[in-house]
Amino acid sequence: MSFLDALLGRRLATSEAGTERIKPTTGVATLGLDALGSSSYGPEAALTILIPLGMAGLSRIQAILWVITGLLLVLFVSYRQTIAAYPTGGGSYTVAKENLGMHAGLLAASSLLVDYILVVAVGISAGIGALESAFPLLQHHTLEACLIVLLIITLANLRGVRQSGLLWLLPTYLFVASLGLVLAVGLMKSLLSGGHPVAVEAPPPLPAATMVPTAWLLIRAFASGCTAMTGVEAVSNAVPIFQEPRVVHAQRTLFIICLLLGLFLLGIGHLSYVYKIGAMNQQQPGYQSVISQIAAATVGHGTLYYLCIAGTLAVLSLSANTSFSDFPRLCRLLAEDGYLPPSFANLGRRLVYSEGIVVLSFISAILLVIFDGITDRLIPLFAVGAFSAFTFSETGMMMYWKKSREKRARTAFFVNGLGALTTALALATILVTKFIEGAWITVLLIGGLGALFLIIGRHYHRLRRKIEMEGKLRVGWSSPPIVVVPIGGWDRVSNRALLFSMQIARDIIAVNISNDEPTAARLRAVWKEKVEQPAIDAGLQPPKLEIIHSPYRELFIPLLEFIREMKKRHPDRTIAVVIPELVHPRWWEYLLHNYSAAALKTLLLTEGGDGIVLISTPWYLREPLPRGDAGPPK
Amino acid sequence: MSFLDALLGRRLATSEAGTERIKPTTGVATLGLDALGSSSYGPEAALTILIPLGMAGLSRIQAILWVITGLLLVLFVSYRQTIAAYPTGGGSYTVAKENLGMHAGLLAASSLLVDYILVVAVGISAGIGALESAFPLLQHHTLEACLIVLLIITLANLRGVRQSGLLWLLPTYLFVASLGLVLAVGLMKSLLSGGHPVAVEAPPPLPAATMVPTAWLLIRAFASGCTAMTGVEAVSNAVPIFQEPRVVHAQRTLFIICLLLGLFLLGIGHLSYVYKIGAMNQQQPGYQSVISQIAAATVGHGTLYYLCIAGTLAVLSLSANTSFSDFPRLCRLLAEDGYLPPSFANLGRRLVYSEGIVVLSFISAILLVIFDGITDRLIPLFAVGAFSAFTFSETGMMMYWKKSREKRARTAFFVNGLGALTTALALATILVTKFIEGAWITVLLIGGLGALFLIIGRHYHRLRRKIEMEGKLRVGWSSPPIVVVPIGGWDRVSNRALLFSMQIARDIIAVNISNDEPTAARLRAVWKEKVEQPAIDAGLQPPKLEIIHSPYRELFIPLLEFIREMKKRHPDRTIAVVIPELVHPRWWEYLLHNYSAAALKTLLLTEGGDGIVLISTPWYLREPLPRGDAGPPK
Repeated sequence: MSFLDALLGRRLATSEAGTERIKPTTGVATLGLDALGSSSYGPEAALTILIPLGMAGLSRIQAILWVITGLLLVLFVSYRQTIAAYPTGGGSYTVAKENLGMHAGLLAASSLLVDYILVVAVGISAGIGALESAFPLLQHHTLEACLIVLLIITLANLRGVRQSGLLWLLPTYLFVASLGLVLAVGLMKSLLSGGHPVAVEAPPPLPAATMVPTAWLLIRAFASGCTAMTGVEAVSNAVPIFQEPRVVHAQRTLFIICLLLGLFLLGIGHLSYVYKIGAMNQQQPGYQSVISQIAAATVGHGTLYYLCIAGTLAVLSLSANTSFSDFPRLCRLLAEDGYLPPSFANLGRRLVYSEGIVVLSFISAILLVIFDGITDRLIPLFAVGAFSAFTFSETGMMMYWKKSREKRARTAFFVNGLGALTTALALATILVTKFIEGAWITVLLIGGLGALFLIIGRHYHRLRRKIEMEGKLRVGWSSPPIVVVPIGGWDRVSNRALLFSMQIARDIIAVNISNDEPTAARLRAVWKEKVEQPAIDAGLQPPKLEIIHSPYRELFIPLLEFIREMKKRHPDRTIAVVIPELVHPRWWEYLLHNYSAAALKTLLLTEGGDGIVLISTPWYLREPLPRGDAGPPK
Repeated sequence: MSFLDALLGRRLATSEAGTERIKPTTGVATLGLDALGSSSYGPEAALTILIPLGMAGLSRIQAILWVITGLLLVLFVSYRQTIAAYPTGGGSYTVAKENLGMHAGLLAASSLLVDYILVVAVGISAGIGALESAFPLLQHHTLEACLIVLLIITLANLRGVRQSGLLWLLPTYLFVASLGLVLAVGLMKSLLSGGHPVAVEAPPPLPAATMVPTAWLLIRAFASGCTAMTGVEAVSNAVPIFQEPRVVHAQRTLFIICLLLGLFLLGIGHLSYVYKIGAMNQQQPGYQSVISQIAAATVGHGTLYYLCIAGTLAVLSLSANTSFSDFPRLCRLLAEDGYLPPSFANLGRRLVYSEGIVVLSFISAILLVIFDGITDRLIPLFAVGAFSAFTFSETGMMMYWKKSREKRARTAFFVNGLGALTTALALATILVTKFIEGAWITVLLIGGLGALFLIIGRHYHRLRRKIEMEGKLRVGWSSPPIVVVPIGGWDRVSNRALLFSMQIARDIIAVNISNDEPTAARLRAVWKEKVEQPAIDAGLQPPKLEIIHSPYRELFIPLLEFIREMKKRHPDRTIAVVIPELVHPRWWEYLLHNYSAAALKTLLLTEGGDGIVLISTPWYLREPLPRGDAGPPK
């Protein structure tokens, strides 16, 4: 088994594609990590904004989380429709492109791609950050730890989507089960005590209020809480990876994810209120996350508490995986439409879009390195992309139903219309409240990426138009080429080039660039005796020798001028330049040669113009020397 | 006038070479800066070792400098002979190679090259260091200042040797005149006062003695003082750059340099003694160099003092220039003998060996960057190379005279024998006293470089043997090639490749790698209609289409296998692979393509084996598109 096989699994034939499809159990882990993981920071982000309200903030958090859950419901219903309407994958890009036009599609794609990249960087660094609260020893190796996690996720995804799903099943279900149990226990206690449960471990007291609630503050809390919804679109984009019936499987997966997320949000909101749990300042010692406080209050510092914390950590740092499923798939769609290089659409050895995976990993690694593994500041940036994509998708679906003649189209139009309205409102809120904090960067990135796609698309479109061939082979143009062979002297290398030239043409001109007359005279004599005479004897047209004097010791310029001159004199013939090339058996031997063959080829290719063809006759150095001739003269 | 012309001067034709030769006045500046500049640090280095002796050290310094001057005399006489014996340039390399064998020659060359590199780095940083004592503001920009000076020296040398000589005339003669005047005034005062002159500005008192003089200490002082002699060999290596009669001009230059250096050494030794001037600790505030103390003591802090200091600074930082004259020249000799790539022997646009200049500049820049512009620690390393080269040269000349039948051969043999003996002794002293301080690094570098030359030499020798062509053109082997054209489909690019193929051969096979049957079937139909039929109609043998199924989605491996198979089936025919290549008008457009043509060519060149020829048919994207067709579909 080779190293690559061990690392990435054996290569898969294209015909094995069917075996790599998934079901909802795996789907939740593969596509839901991002959405589920965000339940651990969404409510906390909202509560953080509410800190200055003290106790008064708690009565507001429940309402805010109900609004967010309502928004989630709208998203669920409308994305459910999208999955049914686009069973081949109805990501925001496809939906926007088909219903709103290419520009909208590219902006939706840019939004998603920016979002995916941020999710990877923020997810991994948040997970490692949380791990460091538990193991402070790690603190001096934040960046290294982040990059190792990134590497593991990358390799797992390069192995293929089903395996990576299996790999994440354990942490996902650990998180779902332990947090679910904690919340269930808490709700039960709250119910039994008539809404006044006694905490097993009391949360730290809330700070005194320093502000009164204002609309602006509540809106900002809502906007921050909206980060809980990132990742919900993942399923609609990835319908083709499900087993048949894929629409049903995909819808079921989306349902499970949304249900769990909604329950978690409402549960967290309720328990924060009844246990009087607020967000704490993360910069200060003794910091505990909201989930940690809730778990301690409901079940104490027992096994369940630690399982719940461990699950949160795992899901946070692995939530990057959702991006790794969707980013390459979106890149493939863009590549197929000609807005990215076609290699993004190539299936790798394990039938995944390896190039997208590698690019995502690379960009995320750069982000992690720039921010030294601490990407807290990126958090305000990343709801923008998600909600921008939501809005494009919902608006696109409105248009879709408007044109549709299906029976349910009218209802569906209003469902997606509601979705469009609410997500647009949420996006506006996020943009307004977070613009200065960093949302402007996201806006710039999305716009820039969209413009880049347009430029690339234009290039490929022009290329396609130019190389398109409507007509048939034109067989007229077939007088044989004139062959030009640049030589340094009479040796085996030029011998080989000449022999090949004589196989393909009759008019052969060997060109030697010289700076010194005696050497030139010697070459002329050798040429007469060893090249021309044998050719004449064999009844062939002898190759001509042309010696060009180069007063400024240049090699290529006189040669290029000679070739241009030839072309001018014979406009109807192809000029084939035969370039003898030494091939070395050891890499370092390449360092000892002047790259003159490579440089000459590049020059002729870019400057030669139409009607020039380059021929490389390789000359291999592999054969051993005759015995007793291993070193230079001593 | 182009930018390059402005920077480097207009290019010179080979026939203009004669105008670039120099005379002794320029020769002293071009080749003597290193030797003369070392008079400013040689005596100081010896005095530094003597610091612990206090006043007692002063009575020793005179003796040590007399010994060193004696050694200089021996070197002068023997190098004078060398110049006469090797009028085409008798550097240590040539002399050692011709009289002691190639290995000795390569070691001598390595010694010199290492020495030249160290002289550049140390010279520039010492000069800038001294400048910083005068202008402390510079201290935060040491590295930048060093690199700027390096750049100026490099550009000046790329302009050509005569210009660079003129450029250095002013600082050299400023140094010689001012230091000479200071020493003359001092000697006069010493003479008039009977050896007890009164200092104009009294030097700082010498520290009390902490040691008694030991033989070891005196030997170490001598070894350190020997750095004063580096650079003396420069003239013998550069005889060809002098105007005719070059031997006389070169000998005169050597004489002037050695005379000035000897006078400076003796003068400094005497004045240190009579004015009671010792070396000071450079790490401590208030540091003054020995030359600065002497100048202050003899002429006070007047104009002459400042001229003398300025001259020292200039000569120190420009002493690098000697290396820039000799390093490229030595590299050329090595290249002509096949121990360095031939490009080191190419004359650049200004008839200097540009590649050697650039390489020296690059390595020195790396040294400066590594040491952050502070290369004090390199000083112990750099007398080793010079004395090693001296010893090789002197021993080589001994052998030369031994074989010679000239009248003066006997005397000359003893002169060079004396030189060999004394330089070998000095080298042994330097090695023993400085081995642990860093001389071991130099020894390793010299050995390593020598080994590298042997490896390179072996490579070029084998190459020459392999491509040597004794016989005549063999005209038998000329059945036309089989042409293989890898195509992605039927478009203008493959059309162009096919048309060329039909010009040079009859057996043409287009190869398409496919993963999907419908596309393959479509291509077969198009082929039949648009390629085969027109060819048959024109009475030509139609190109065949071969579609290869690639289950693992690889492109190159199946193609390579196909070509190998063809070769096995037709061992007597050349397989010509025609690779259509898109040429883009804008650089960034290259980023959008897969480099597949380049990768395929590299693979076929290195893996294809004998009997394969590569043909690139370029396809230019320059032509504009038809109007109204500028963008992708919206």
